[in-house]
Amino acid sequence: MERWMMGDLKPPSRILMGPGPSNVHYRVYQAMLNPVVGYLDPKILAIMDEISEMLRSLFQTKNRLTLAISATGSSGMEASFVNFIEPGDTAIIGVNGFFAERMTEIAARCGAKVIRIDQDWGGIVEPEKMIKALKEHPEAKICAVVHAETSTGVRQPLEEIGAYCKKVDTLFLVDAVTSLGGCEVKVDEWGIDICYSCTQKGISVPPGLSPITISPKALDVLRSRKTKVQSFYLDLLLLEKYWGEERVYHHTAPVSMFYALREGLEIIFEEGLEKRFKRHEILGDRLKMELEGFGFKPFAQEGYRLPMLTSVTLPDWVDDIPIRKRLLNEYNIEVGGGLGQLKGKIWRIGLMGETCKIQSIHCLMGALKEILS
Amino acid sequence: MERWMMGDLKPPSRILMGPGPSNVHYRVYQAMLNPVVGYLDPKILAIMDEISEMLRSLFQTKNRLTLAISATGSSGMEASFVNFIEPGDTAIIGVNGFFAERMTEIAARCGAKVIRIDQDWGGIVEPEKMIKALKEHPEAKICAVVHAETSTGVRQPLEEIGAYCKKVDTLFLVDAVTSLGGCEVKVDEWGIDICYSCTQKGISVPPGLSPITISPKALDVLRSRKTKVQSFYLDLLLLEKYWGEERVYHHTAPVSMFYALREGLEIIFEEGLEKRFKRHEILGDRLKMELEGFGFKPFAQEGYRLPMLTSVTLPDWVDDIPIRKRLLNEYNIEVGGGLGQLKGKIWRIGLMGETCKIQSIHCLMGALKEILS
Repeated sequence: MERWMMGDLKPPSRILMGPGPSNVHYRVYQAMLNPVVGYLDPKILAIMDEISEMLRSLFQTKNRLTLAISATGSSGMEASFVNFIEPGDTAIIGVNGFFAERMTEIAARCGAKVIRIDQDWGGIVEPEKMIKALKEHPEAKICAVVHAETSTGVRQPLEEIGAYCKKVDTLFLVDAVTSLGGCEVKVDEWGIDICYSCTQKGISVPPGLSPITISPKALDVLRSRKTKVQSFYLDLLLLEKYWGEERVYHHTAPVSMFYALREGLEIIFEEGLEKRFKRHEILGDRLKMELEGFGFKPFAQEGYRLPMLTSVTLPDWVDDIPIRKRLLNEYNIEVGGGLGQLKGKIWRIGLMGETCKIQSIHCLMGALKEILS
Repeated sequence: MERWMMGDLKPPSRILMGPGPSNVHYRVYQAMLNPVVGYLDPKILAIMDEISEMLRSLFQTKNRLTLAISATGSSGMEASFVNFIEPGDTAIIGVNGFFAERMTEIAARCGAKVIRIDQDWGGIVEPEKMIKALKEHPEAKICAVVHAETSTGVRQPLEEIGAYCKKVDTLFLVDAVTSLGGCEVKVDEWGIDICYSCTQKGISVPPGLSPITISPKALDVLRSRKTKVQSFYLDLLLLEKYWGEERVYHHTAPVSMFYALREGLEIIFEEGLEKRFKRHEILGDRLKMELEGFGFKPFAQEGYRLPMLTSVTLPDWVDDIPIRKRLLNEYNIEVGGGLGQLKGKIWRIGLMGETCKIQSIHCLMGALKEILS
């Protein structure tokens, strides 16, 4: 029988200024030290209720069906399409980045007829274009956009599209993976029907869960499906029976991650949403200013730049990979490179949750000064 | 803005003798205290390689495609069907319990034509019956059974079915959710093509990941699919690109859970598989003996009882729910009730991984003596 001598883990202590994960508060790590209990233990059921309640406040919604899916943010995207799309249904998708592109891929795998509203990466999808498509396709089951496009740093305006969707049957689906916990996501006020996120960005909890919220309008659509949801694991009506009063076993809850999420959410509400969003705004502005002083040019469309994720094009004299390697190896600072068509062209610098503090900016700018001068 | 005062988590310290999760070694909890790093950080990639390597040893396989899916054991079941079944494919499934029943449900959601080989819950599915069905349906894409049926406590014999599948095109799919880490699972020797498990039973790590291994024969089938896998999140060819040398981003790895799994696996190999499996066997036998002395009757078919999960029918004078509630509330001991058609009829008592020690048996028998006498 083989024996292993892997030795200690000893991961380095990074300043996580990439597009996620962000740094984690020590109390969140400590929460995971709590002993695991069974998936129907009264204690874990109470904790799930608390998580739902706090997620409702974070999503600014009254939606009863608000929970955390037992897999990472990408599973939230899949759950959002797989539960509502039946083969042949139409989905209008605003495509202005890597994750919007992924939405079209996932929608297609669910059998959707996808109508793309394309926009060059770095810009917003004009709400009028989305509304025009909605008018041309009243049969559309879903209209989807990415609130905070992680690949470009663009903040998509949602209010006009949501206001239109409120008046018609089409469901408004919003990816809030990078925005939730770092800026306003007003699910009810903005007319969002399906909204999902992750734990490892604005919430500053390790990756592993996907918060999601479903409006009563969307729930009606779900309940009147003609076919079964093609995914069992992500079937929201089954998850509802476990998270809701019936407490029917569906899968074994990732208990330690639930402990972590509960603590992370509690830390958010100790700070207060208003203060937290302001912090992201002020420090995001400061980072952009510092980077411009260095010769980096903002990439995202002016007026629509995310506070928690800054995208910049590189000056000629900055070599993408070698410099990011030095930042990582010599200064323990992670910044993100470009994704997809933007590979090698931009950097994506995150200031999310616990990472969003003036010290992070000082460390990055100090390191860049040493490396580049 | 609402503020929350949830207070400390304070979950109770249970002896987890249900069907999973099992108790977790303190070193595994400590591993989760390590700082999160990015999903392409050289450190996490090295850890993923170590996890794959140790999982290969645990599955007793040389399969290159061996990894941990970023969701719980149930997602492993879904991944096993969704990647290999295309609409209209035939799947032969031995159905002798709740989880085998779930296999038929998931296979159907993937568009499979399901051929059920039914057996009363509590018994094994006779290998000859499976082989007969394989002969009658040479077109079958998959032949599936549950190795350790968590709902009944039955250990399914695999060798004969595997030997037959080796000679034909049909892939042999085995659910090892409750067996892996507690008894032999010889993937290569037994001719298993697709095998998945969980982290929270024999491996004694918190729930949240699903180890899976795929044979070269199965990989060929996967690569020659005519249609796309209907799940993006569970698409094994995309996961292969992230876990393999290409390191293409697919989703943000649940870093803290990877730390935990690596530590849990290391603990397993420090003990050694042979010693570990012997421990489960000896203590499983001891528990069965003690329970019989108390008037509980073994439920699973003689000769095919699982070491790590003991199923017993209740004596008339034992009231299911009130007694389990007292065990939980007064003695902090979790034991499992019956699932599905066995609700109220049996108990399922786990002795898995860290829980599998003589003290667990002493605590349970001591508590039962106090409650029932």
